[in-house]
Amino acid sequence: MSFNTFGRLFRFTTWGESHGLALGAVVDGCPPGLALTEADIQPLLDRRRPGQSKFTTQRQEPDQVRILSGTFEGRTTGTPISLMIENTDQRSKDYGEIAQVYRPGHADYAYDAKYGFRDYRGGGRSSARETAARVAAGAVARLVIPEVAITAWVAEIGGDAIDPDAFDAAEIGNNPFFCPDPAAAQRWEKIVDEARRAGSSVGAVVECVATGVPAGWGAPLYAKLDSELAAAMMSINAVKGIEIGDGFAAARLTGEQNADPMRPQGEHGPQFLANHAGGIAGGISTGQPVRVRVAFKPTSSILTPVETVNRAGESAEVRTKGRHDPCVGIRGVPVVEAMMALVLADQKLLQRGQCG
Amino acid sequence: MSFNTFGRLFRFTTWGESHGLALGAVVDGCPPGLALTEADIQPLLDRRRPGQSKFTTQRQEPDQVRILSGTFEGRTTGTPISLMIENTDQRSKDYGEIAQVYRPGHADYAYDAKYGFRDYRGGGRSSARETAARVAAGAVARLVIPEVAITAWVAEIGGDAIDPDAFDAAEIGNNPFFCPDPAAAQRWEKIVDEARRAGSSVGAVVECVATGVPAGWGAPLYAKLDSELAAAMMSINAVKGIEIGDGFAAARLTGEQNADPMRPQGEHGPQFLANHAGGIAGGISTGQPVRVRVAFKPTSSILTPVETVNRAGESAEVRTKGRHDPCVGIRGVPVVEAMMALVLADQKLLQRGQCG
Amino acid sequence: MSFNTFGRLFRFTTWGESHGLALGAVVDGCPPGLALTEADIQPLLDRRRPGQSKFTTQRQEPDQVRILSGTFEGRTTGTPISLMIENTDQRSKDYGEIAQVYRPGHADYAYDAKYGFRDYRGGGRSSARETAARVAAGAVARLVIPEVAITAWVAEIGGDAIDPDAFDAAEIGNNPFFCPDPAAAQRWEKIVDEARRAGSSVGAVVECVATGVPAGWGAPLYAKLDSELAAAMMSINAVKGIEIGDGFAAARLTGEQNADPMRPQGEHGPQFLANHAGGIAGGISTGQPVRVRVAFKPTSSILTPVETVNRAGESAEVRTKGRHDPCVGIRGVPVVEAMMALVLADQKLLQRGQCG
Amino acid sequence: MSFNTFGRLFRFTTWGESHGLALGAVVDGCPPGLALTEADIQPLLDRRRPGQSKFTTQRQEPDQVRILSGTFEGRTTGTPISLMIENTDQRSKDYGEIAQVYRPGHADYAYDAKYGFRDYRGGGRSSARETAARVAAGAVARLVIPEVAITAWVAEIGGDAIDPDAFDAAEIGNNPFFCPDPAAAQRWEKIVDEARRAGSSVGAVVECVATGVPAGWGAPLYAKLDSELAAAMMSINAVKGIEIGDGFAAARLTGEQNADPMRPQGEHGPQFLANHAGGIAGGISTGQPVRVRVAFKPTSSILTPVETVNRAGESAEVRTKGRHDPCVGIRGVPVVEAMMALVLADQKLLQRGQCG
Repeated sequence: MSFNTFGRLFRFTTWGESHGLALGAVVDGCPPGLALTEADIQPLLDRRRPGQSKFTTQRQEPDQVRILSGTFEGRTTGTPISLMIENTDQRSKDYGEIAQVYRPGHADYAYDAKYGFRDYRGGGRSSARETAARVAAGAVARLVIPEVAITAWVAEIGGDAIDPDAFDAAEIGNNPFFCPDPAAAQRWEKIVDEARRAGSSVGAVVECVATGVPAGWGAPLYAKLDSELAAAMMSINAVKGIEIGDGFAAARLTGEQNADPMRPQGEHGPQFLANHAGGIAGGISTGQPVRVRVAFKPTSSILTPVETVNRAGESAEVRTKGRHDPCVGIRGVPVVEAMMALVLADQKLLQRGQCG
Repeated sequence: MSFNTFGRLFRFTTWGESHGLALGAVVDGCPPGLALTEADIQPLLDRRRPGQSKFTTQRQEPDQVRILSGTFEGRTTGTPISLMIENTDQRSKDYGEIAQVYRPGHADYAYDAKYGFRDYRGGGRSSARETAARVAAGAVARLVIPEVAITAWVAEIGGDAIDPDAFDAAEIGNNPFFCPDPAAAQRWEKIVDEARRAGSSVGAVVECVATGVPAGWGAPLYAKLDSELAAAMMSINAVKGIEIGDGFAAARLTGEQNADPMRPQGEHGPQFLANHAGGIAGGISTGQPVRVRVAFKPTSSILTPVETVNRAGESAEVRTKGRHDPCVGIRGVPVVEAMMALVLADQKLLQRGQCG
Repeated sequence: MSFNTFGRLFRFTTWGESHGLALGAVVDGCPPGLALTEADIQPLLDRRRPGQSKFTTQRQEPDQVRILSGTFEGRTTGTPISLMIENTDQRSKDYGEIAQVYRPGHADYAYDAKYGFRDYRGGGRSSARETAARVAAGAVARLVIPEVAITAWVAEIGGDAIDPDAFDAAEIGNNPFFCPDPAAAQRWEKIVDEARRAGSSVGAVVECVATGVPAGWGAPLYAKLDSELAAAMMSINAVKGIEIGDGFAAARLTGEQNADPMRPQGEHGPQFLANHAGGIAGGISTGQPVRVRVAFKPTSSILTPVETVNRAGESAEVRTKGRHDPCVGIRGVPVVEAMMALVLADQKLLQRGQCG
Repeated sequence: MSFNTFGRLFRFTTWGESHGLALGAVVDGCPPGLALTEADIQPLLDRRRPGQSKFTTQRQEPDQVRILSGTFEGRTTGTPISLMIENTDQRSKDYGEIAQVYRPGHADYAYDAKYGFRDYRGGGRSSARETAARVAAGAVARLVIPEVAITAWVAEIGGDAIDPDAFDAAEIGNNPFFCPDPAAAQRWEKIVDEARRAGSSVGAVVECVATGVPAGWGAPLYAKLDSELAAAMMSINAVKGIEIGDGFAAARLTGEQNADPMRPQGEHGPQFLANHAGGIAGGISTGQPVRVRVAFKPTSSILTPVETVNRAGESAEVRTKGRHDPCVGIRGVPVVEAMMALVLADQKLLQRGQCG
């Protein structure tokens, strides 16, 4: 792991700013011989693409990915895979006024404090636009773990949660919220639309489950599967909390309530009677579904003026008139899936490397 | 970061099993010239030491640390600091019966699935005993960041939370629960004692605040300060959730509610009117206190028999009669502090390296 | 360091194949605020560019570099710098016949053994064309170490060495061999031209000196400055040997002969009376010039038929008719300089990180 | 790789100073289930042990290794293996006088320049005593690669080389020089003894061959097998040069002379008719023996006074009266073997991880 690199054996490095010429990812350590063309990546990018409904930012980006290296005759060669997405809709004029004023809740002040200056156009490197590169890299990662199925959805928007009993995975693609509960999707339409029209924003909780992960991926102690997932998810813009399995709710249970009893079930390892642990024990997968919950804050880009300071240290006010997502958590769904895939692909290779 | 190593410039590697001869940490990349003797480490280890009250495990370990390398005439030399703690109270007979039976909620099954076999004595490498090595390493890390003050406490046990208005940092050391609210400490005495006598266990939430962190530590995007903290905290045994700042509560706020407005305050950067962000924006510290919340599950070592399987895949039952913590979150306090120090020390050096 | 990444704090990752669409490098960890445009990189690329004399490959590549990210208003922002060079002269037909036959001395067989197949067009990833990406990255590295001056030259071709007493740095740019000794340059013209016309090839030795490196860069023991330089230089295609200072000649000296005595010289550290050590002691720079020698083998691309096998394991013969360098060591000069700069930039930041 | 860590998947970290309490290595990432006890390590340490003949330092160290973690019931568990060797013969008085004076050729001045001060006792961390920890770690590495046989020997002392035609591997253990040529061994006895009695020192060249390495280990471009070996060997104290295969001699060959033709030989890959490449092409093993040559300088510890400066920057003279090796290259043999094993073990796991 480096500043802009994630992973150990299966590794990716992203680059690019919101309003630069392009952005991309270099995927290194990918196994050779996997069938890979742009068509394997584009559909996942399309799910994350902005401007597809009124509930996300109206920036128009085709997000067309190109594979510049690392494949030959349609298969991965084992050498670095360079993925590039050109930026086309960089309306810098929208952002000119924030050059001198720090937007509270954004990275503006922190970047200046660290680097002395910053690319202020659309948030520069701190823009959620970077997540397109992750989704592209994640598409490659999925090819490394065909045994695993990954599904994420929005479980809560603005404090309004889905009904777990109404969960229907087939519904996730049927609404603009990646919502598995049609009734909740309807309620959210109103919540998000009101926020959008008010120039406000709302937070969200995204859940992700990976099934098919065999027992034995992960490692004690600082490369624990849950530790890697926590780092991966927390690296996504706007994320403020992570739970594995029952997460904070587990802190309110007794040992008896939190137990995941086991029962024989033939050759494929034990049958678990519960999954409070979220599929991970001691940092290593147990063969149960790996379950993660991720909290997205409301974006700080709002129309209501907020008190702030400018680069000169003087009092100022800022309101965000540019295009933005009223609920960034929504487009977080394909990003969370990508990070899950990226972590699991890495762990699969690590396990194979150490344990054969 | 490797399997048992954490950090980038300021790095530590831990080794050792619950019932091995010893355990330890090698701290690498420490700045030279810092005054360091065992006396700087021992008091922090003593806070974590088992057997100090009836609310923690009754295992008796002096946890005496020795510095084997990396100092000369009482100062760090810049070369690796080897820290060793001998195990003295390894009552393996307590654990003999779990050699063949997988304890649900423990790492037993996952370790066997990964490695083919395991050191079952007291959980081997997966034992929380490993955290002694972190606390020792963390004591060195604190010397690297004298500008930072780190305080952690238990904020909730078994679902019973402290009253934020009753928070008194001076109380943390006055009770066996690291509890800043005397009234809560009294209630917890009953909760934990009942769990202990019933052979049950309860979960806990630990909070940690670091003040004095200057703006500018951390980095986009995969070495974000919050991402590193999430990895660090999730690497602690029994942790299932992490929050930065408002965490999951932020997902229930609007952009207006979640804003951290700024106001001029002279030379030392802006004054922030709130700290929902927990002192981190865009992965970089803002100069506000860095706030983290960590969820500890109830330990799975309970007297109530739980259905399970043995190594042969047959049905079995297991109940834990050995010594254990009725609430592992309590002794998590010094460990959370250590991980906070270790992450911040690393980030300080990284910032100095890149930005001078 | 990963498969295609080099460095610790100042790090770069390269990607691209000889006959792919493009190749490039992502430079991560660069300090912010450095003035950087394409004009800082292009001249160094131009020195390495093929087709500039009859003594190098006749492939025509403009090697035009583009900065895709990491700068703003002409300065580095501290975020990843993506550098891209498009391939324009990919005459794949030249290489079609080697798809099935392993060229001895090339990576063909080894790649197939590792990955199961390979991009055979022009050597794919194993082509020396990759070194363009390093030279681009190295141009950025030079900006990080303005206190250092780096000069490399060819010291020997086909066993014919320069006369050390005739060394004139000003001559290096005056001939197509980067040769500091005009008389040697004249002799080499004949040697290399004969090899070229015979479809043969010759080896070379490149020397590189970095002056201005302050005492204190490097570190014991596995990040020794000489260890990093050895890894860096050996990672260049066709390199088979590395010497620091006197190198193998030191193995033939006595301790007295090999001593580098010191003498006071005021504030700027001692004056050294010799530099057998090549500016490095115990893995750390001493303030003397850092001296490295690098052996390049003759390229294996020759017209004389060589006995070999094909992918089916059958006997075959191969002769290389494509464009190639009769002496790859010549164009190694800017590459060696780039790797020197990349190592030193990294070590400067590491030193600043650990020791302030 | 970090300051004191080497390797990627199979990794080790060493710690300890010449005159500290102990030194050691933590081996991380080792495959589980390998039979390992102290008896697997001690014989290799004994080969390196000082004081076994008059041709090496007279320091008396039993170099008794203890395994403190990472094994259970005599097998590796996959968790970190902590190896410790206590120092017993730390005659610090021998070294007291060098506290204030920089020994030319030693790391004294460079350490002070970097760290501001140093542990001067016996060279502290820069002492060749550290290599004991590598040899211990290398013994573990050998268990990971049972298919590989590693043999090193001294090929040259003080400029006097063995006769390649007289090479007899069985002789290596029959003389105190690890010399495969009995006639050379006899000549060296005189050379080294004269150096010893004169308080002088001589250099040496060590060769190492690993047979049984399958084709496919290594990786382009910055984790090339030869790049890793170069880094590994150059990290050994007193090493100033590295050659892979023909090394610098290859720079004097033509492409025809340097070719390694191939011929079919059934299922086990091609038969190679030469091995100029030293078993590595494009950074990846070819299945041929991996051949490395390593140049050791004469130690700088000599009785003849050498001009130098002291810590105050004043003129001084220094002569080394303490115990030292008249030819450090001799005891370099087991160290070179260890580094070869450590690199190959790592590459085996990396290859398995990426390519299955």
